[in-house]
Amino acid sequence: MLNELANRCHSELTESILPFWMNHSIDSQNGGFWTCLERDGTVFDTRKYVWMNGRQVWMLSRLYRTFDQRAEWLDAARGGAEFLRCHGFDDQGRCWFSLTAEGTPAGYQRKPYGAVFVMLGFLEYSKASGDASYRELALDLFWRIGQYIKEPSLLGRPTLPGAPRLSGLADIYVLCAMALDLLEDDPQNAQHLDVLRACLRQIKFHYHPGRQLFYENAPLDWESAQTPDGRLICPGSIFEINWLLSRALDYLPDEEAWKLLHSTLEGALESGWDTDFGGLYYFLDVEGHSPLQLEWAMKLWWVHVEALYALVNAYSRTHDPKWLEWLDRVQDWVWAHFPDKQFGEWFGYLDRQGQPALTLKGGNYKGCFHIPRALLFALQAIQRSCAR
Amino acid sequence: MLNELANRCHSELTESILPFWMNHSIDSQNGGFWTCLERDGTVFDTRKYVWMNGRQVWMLSRLYRTFDQRAEWLDAARGGAEFLRCHGFDDQGRCWFSLTAEGTPAGYQRKPYGAVFVMLGFLEYSKASGDASYRELALDLFWRIGQYIKEPSLLGRPTLPGAPRLSGLADIYVLCAMALDLLEDDPQNAQHLDVLRACLRQIKFHYHPGRQLFYENAPLDWESAQTPDGRLICPGSIFEINWLLSRALDYLPDEEAWKLLHSTLEGALESGWDTDFGGLYYFLDVEGHSPLQLEWAMKLWWVHVEALYALVNAYSRTHDPKWLEWLDRVQDWVWAHFPDKQFGEWFGYLDRQGQPALTLKGGNYKGCFHIPRALLFALQAIQRSCAR
Repeated sequence: MLNELANRCHSELTESILPFWMNHSIDSQNGGFWTCLERDGTVFDTRKYVWMNGRQVWMLSRLYRTFDQRAEWLDAARGGAEFLRCHGFDDQGRCWFSLTAEGTPAGYQRKPYGAVFVMLGFLEYSKASGDASYRELALDLFWRIGQYIKEPSLLGRPTLPGAPRLSGLADIYVLCAMALDLLEDDPQNAQHLDVLRACLRQIKFHYHPGRQLFYENAPLDWESAQTPDGRLICPGSIFEINWLLSRALDYLPDEEAWKLLHSTLEGALESGWDTDFGGLYYFLDVEGHSPLQLEWAMKLWWVHVEALYALVNAYSRTHDPKWLEWLDRVQDWVWAHFPDKQFGEWFGYLDRQGQPALTLKGGNYKGCFHIPRALLFALQAIQRSCAR
Repeated sequence: MLNELANRCHSELTESILPFWMNHSIDSQNGGFWTCLERDGTVFDTRKYVWMNGRQVWMLSRLYRTFDQRAEWLDAARGGAEFLRCHGFDDQGRCWFSLTAEGTPAGYQRKPYGAVFVMLGFLEYSKASGDASYRELALDLFWRIGQYIKEPSLLGRPTLPGAPRLSGLADIYVLCAMALDLLEDDPQNAQHLDVLRACLRQIKFHYHPGRQLFYENAPLDWESAQTPDGRLICPGSIFEINWLLSRALDYLPDEEAWKLLHSTLEGALESGWDTDFGGLYYFLDVEGHSPLQLEWAMKLWWVHVEALYALVNAYSRTHDPKWLEWLDRVQDWVWAHFPDKQFGEWFGYLDRQGQPALTLKGGNYKGCFHIPRALLFALQAIQRSCAR
């Protein structure tokens, strides 16, 4: 079954996903990537979303470096990196959210995530290309992002006395992802190991033992726990942080954290699986209230590919047959519902029943990232596992 | 059929909608209203949303003044108005978005709409109670909101050179709604008539003649027209602005605007009706692209009650049988899908197929407003029409 899955990942990646993005997303005139693409690849919005551009730079560079040294991948990554370096920042070094096709500022968000994916893109591009100047930019961004997370007012977010006090899973995820990519070249770096250590400490506050889940936003006091944000569960975030933190544990073994990862992978699959229509929910309320998110019951591409790779990763590390059973169930649903046989790539947003609710292939939140990353990582994990 | 509809509106209003909100939303200790209510009325978030509180003050005051002088309605409206007056504003007079149950600031939004519904609530409460101090506050807010709309940086929104240049239907709607409520007491007021005049001028830029629709955001240049926001259609907004502008035309007759209202009411019904599952879509792209809004195909309570009242209003003004046919179709779908026979009130968020996707009765965007307002206005329009 795993060999078959590896073959499928390889063919999806090289025959469907990458050709779609290489054919339709590259602005060869200005550099950078369009991500708002119709089902057939037609660009329906020429704005460039900074975080989507950073993600695509990362993806193409990683593919070039670890999968296949195709010059067109590195060239496109360079075009994206140069576009972001030229146009991505305001005069205080903060990242814009969106730009026009030519690079004029079009939107600003008071969140650190744009900067995170520019940082990851720059770092990976420097590894792929050997251009050390992008590593310097990435390192500078890394420390800056740490400050943004500690002090949101640096990005213009007010801190209000009545606001719920919450610790975000997303912040742990991005700090851990950046530190791991930095450690790859420099595995003894004490400062970067400290960041991983803090992430492994922080994740424990997110654990709900009764339900075997990580809260999306760990409430820091009783009142905050009574808010919808303080009760929110996002199975996709749990899958994504699962495989990521398992890599952190390769650097810093921690038996307790390891147990939590296993417990929450199972919990997120059990709570997240829709027993009526199949597939995994987007959001849940830990107390069973109705989530405020209108899209809570929709079936999203990234939630499902993150589950897929988290299960491959868990099985390859433990050989526990329980993960293979889940993998079978998840991949059956994925292959039956997401890929678009006519135009390639996958539909991103299915309704609860599994029909495409949005027919677009990319937008301001879907780009060339989660699908190829999960397919590449799954393929590489299976290959390593077989080579052992 | 219209008499039957009036009876149904009356019983829904007095036996289902109002009892639900009076029983479950009133915080008699602190004043103000909870709006995050489960299907059975249980409060699942004790935060007070400022705009939802302003809307409920408006609704209860309007019911007291024009429908039935129930002391408990005016008392609850007073509790809401006093809570907003005490806690709703920052030290620069800008409205908060959300507060804790006790009134501590919990959230801020850089939009004028919180202030709009506080203004409308204060004004209506002053009419219902005779307390002129609330009229003064409302007038001050009215001019302030006009400034916010002209100069968004007053609320902290940056204006970026690459951002799409768009004129929002919502801005026309709120300016017109406020001016009409002010003119009710003072129908010759030249400044308020000028605001109506500007609204009637501005709406013409939103018209798409080929498709008989008002754009949600009228693009001010060619580039802005190529963005998803510049192509967005929200049938619910077209229904809401339809009946509202028809009232403006009572003050300022304008044959051209009158024709646009008829044309777009028909266009929004034709384009908005889901021929597969019935009901009206939430968002559409005027060129037929996939909207970016994940909820575009969901069926929302407010879109449907606005259609219902817009049709009653259009028929009572024209006696064109075409509106009765549509009214029949819309109300059949409404009565079959939205009311909750078990706990009263209506489900707000149905999936495309018409099943409740969220079981809540109120949230941060659904409160005691659209349903009772449309039922009351429909009832009053039918009564006036029969009395003629």
